[in-house]
Amino acid sequence: MTDFQNAPDLYYEDLAVSRVLRCGTVEVNREEMLDFAKRYDPQRFHLEEEAGNDSLFGGMSASGWFTAALTMGLMVRGEFRFGGGAVGLGIDELRWPRPVHAGDRLTATVEVAAMRPSASRPSHGVVKFVTTTRNQHGEVVMTKSAQVLVPRRPQARP
Amino acid sequence: MTDFQNAPDLYYEDLAVSRVLRCGTVEVNREEMLDFAKRYDPQRFHLEEEAGNDSLFGGMSASGWFTAALTMGLMVRGEFRFGGGAVGLGIDELRWPRPVHAGDRLTATVEVAAMRPSASRPSHGVVKFVTTTRNQHGEVVMTKSAQVLVPRRPQARP
Repeated sequence: MTDFQNAPDLYYEDLAVSRVLRCGTVEVNREEMLDFAKRYDPQRFHLEEEAGNDSLFGGMSASGWFTAALTMGLMVRGEFRFGGGAVGLGIDELRWPRPVHAGDRLTATVEVAAMRPSASRPSHGVVKFVTTTRNQHGEVVMTKSAQVLVPRRPQARP
Repeated sequence: MTDFQNAPDLYYEDLAVSRVLRCGTVEVNREEMLDFAKRYDPQRFHLEEEAGNDSLFGGMSASGWFTAALTMGLMVRGEFRFGGGAVGLGIDELRWPRPVHAGDRLTATVEVAAMRPSASRPSHGVVKFVTTTRNQHGEVVMTKSAQVLVPRRPQARP
């Protein structure tokens, strides 16, 4: 993640449709993945190798919510950082096309798909970000389409 | 959660449109909420009271992904349990209409909105579940619409 330690805080004015924000890489830690599953998604195929092998996943797999949480971590530690913070209004689509396994190395990219000033909050813009999470083979393990309130640069506010 | 400890494993055949699956209650633990934010969503309004007060949330608030994870835990420990486990195909809509704060008590209900046999996997059905998470005041803090692969009862498989 070192590459992004000094990434600047962004504002709505820094974005443009098709701009891609980059993120670092995270390795899926087996203990952390199991701890997450025990707490939040204790289904057997997330907890036991054997049950995973018998499942549609072909091996013990991460909870999709763990992949979503890891991806958020990649984003906030990457270039997805905004002055005052970005507030998620909601997710329009979240997909997990392939399972995530312990030891996988994940990275993500975040593309600006659409943007407009907020009518109700002049201090913010509403940005549609499409995030794609890939494993070490370049295979897509998660896609997410989100509507996010992004702060406008203070001097640019109407 | 004691009420649901002996909840039976469900199969596709046990479901019907409008059936509601019930869940227990979880209190939002401040340390766990902060630990989650530090790991996965380290934005200041999720980590510091002061930054939370200055934000749109009106107080330090949980990451939406923490609320999603807690809700999944409520579901799997409630009546949302399936023989062989349920596999989320994806989320069509995820919303966080109100913030979640430490000490809130959350519960969830899961309604069957639509269901059909899977064309590609005769051993399963595809079910659209709408989950609503509420706080102790009955206010909705999260809604989720998910497509889930649910196992058919073995003897009922075509």
